[in-house]
Amino acid sequence: MKLTILGCYAATPRTFTNPTSQVLEIKNRLFLIDCGEGTQVQLRKNKIKFSKINHIFISHLHGDHFFGLVGLVSTFSLLNRTTDLHIYGPEGVKDIILLQLKLSNAWTNYGLFFHELKSLDSEIVYEDDKVIVKTIPLKHRVYTNGFLFEEKVGERKLNVAAVQQHKIETCYYQNIKNGKDITLDDGAIIPNTALTFDPDATKSYAFCSDTIYHEAIIPLIKNVDVLYHESTFLQSEEALAKKTFHSTAQEAALIAQKATVKKLILGHYSTRYDSISSFKAEAESIFSSILLADDGKTFEF
Amino acid sequence: MKLTILGCYAATPRTFTNPTSQVLEIKNRLFLIDCGEGTQVQLRKNKIKFSKINHIFISHLHGDHFFGLVGLVSTFSLLNRTTDLHIYGPEGVKDIILLQLKLSNAWTNYGLFFHELKSLDSEIVYEDDKVIVKTIPLKHRVYTNGFLFEEKVGERKLNVAAVQQHKIETCYYQNIKNGKDITLDDGAIIPNTALTFDPDATKSYAFCSDTIYHEAIIPLIKNVDVLYHESTFLQSEEALAKKTFHSTAQEAALIAQKATVKKLILGHYSTRYDSISSFKAEAESIFSSILLADDGKTFEF
Repeated sequence: MKLTILGCYAATPRTFTNPTSQVLEIKNRLFLIDCGEGTQVQLRKNKIKFSKINHIFISHLHGDHFFGLVGLVSTFSLLNRTTDLHIYGPEGVKDIILLQLKLSNAWTNYGLFFHELKSLDSEIVYEDDKVIVKTIPLKHRVYTNGFLFEEKVGERKLNVAAVQQHKIETCYYQNIKNGKDITLDDGAIIPNTALTFDPDATKSYAFCSDTIYHEAIIPLIKNVDVLYHESTFLQSEEALAKKTFHSTAQEAALIAQKATVKKLILGHYSTRYDSISSFKAEAESIFSSILLADDGKTFEF
Repeated sequence: MKLTILGCYAATPRTFTNPTSQVLEIKNRLFLIDCGEGTQVQLRKNKIKFSKINHIFISHLHGDHFFGLVGLVSTFSLLNRTTDLHIYGPEGVKDIILLQLKLSNAWTNYGLFFHELKSLDSEIVYEDDKVIVKTIPLKHRVYTNGFLFEEKVGERKLNVAAVQQHKIETCYYQNIKNGKDITLDDGAIIPNTALTFDPDATKSYAFCSDTIYHEAIIPLIKNVDVLYHESTFLQSEEALAKKTFHSTAQEAALIAQKATVKKLILGHYSTRYDSISSFKAEAESIFSSILLADDGKTFEF
């Protein structure tokens, strides 16, 4: 899994900081999460191939999370894209994009599919043979979802020495990888665990932005490998965080601790702070494994 | 008059080039013309005060000319703007902006006024005591206007020596500046021309983008000081220019020549060209006073 932060600052784009957008590479799939203004330029700067993006997840309809979407959709057309594009986001995102395409008389030359979300419960929004994506209902000023990306458990791994020792024919291998026991010609049953190793450990990533401190998400993100949780403010601005339905670095750390995640990445910093190092210091008083997102930074797990 | 080019490249924003947007400073007013994605960052980079922009003119609803508008409107809110903002653009621009503000539950805290355009004839869209702005109907794939910015003729200038010589009382000065002749107590009439000098010469700027070669605009931009005319293509791509309702550098120069403008600024270059110098070379074969727009460049006249 590789996470590229295209932008992780709150509110307005500035000369050297960008609003929220990130790319998650998982099992050779690229998922774009949020799409603030300027995302297409950030994709170019970070040398991410436009053609590899087929699924875009939008957390909520505040401008710093989606104002770059219509430009990206249009640019895909100009680049003669033909592959389908799927957009997952709150109800209304379709109207916004289609109205602009209609008025510019510029329909896409590729299939554009909207999966509009309105459920207040977690739901599966994407699934293929290797990856599953679920929503994480968040609590913000408008309808908002985080997203949980999970690798599916793969097949069990063949213990080649063991199957050869038992002279098992290759036509049974797939059954064995699927977890079946094997009955030999002499009637002896070889348990699957004697013929296989555990599959690779699966990885999971949870994106949670924007949200007030909200313990209801804890069961949904329990034990994830990496949690990105917004920390718009420091604890000194706790009242402002509550008022605007945002979290502080300390609150993000508390969520990480209670959900026993492996790593916490902080982001969505208010532009009022000169430096982001205070976010790490504050969060580390609660939770030890803290990373700071920053524009252009990549994380591999 | 000072023109700042925030962006002057066609189609998609790239790492080092921006879609159309420019700021015209005229008689201490700042007018923003078009607002492609990333305009607010370009305004910051070029150190243009957000608070001085009260009027935004949108030529047409292709993304590279207005996708940055909603972000700018939102940022004005975040900056606690209270001054009215006026947006002049094609019918539909209001729906686009309001739908997005509605869905993000983020109405502006300042007066936001839309002046939607649909006339196929030139019309006055803005006027105050010193400046007048008229549309220049262009011919493109969607409804498009250029804009003509003209300084109004000021008062005549008092010839102080002459009025003193005739012992004219100061209460008559305003009448004299307004062009009136003066009758002295002895009945002698002093013609205004003997008491005044001509007012400062007025300046005018015409923005014409996007458009196919379109001679109907010539009477509207006749003798302007500066014409910005799109030149998306070189003459080698003439067929493509016709097909996409754009102009070549040569065609822009021909319009400049026929309208006997003083200076022509070329812009809206297709990103297919590695260098923009060929645009100047091509246009100079027709018209001598050619300038090349480029992002971040300023022109003072």
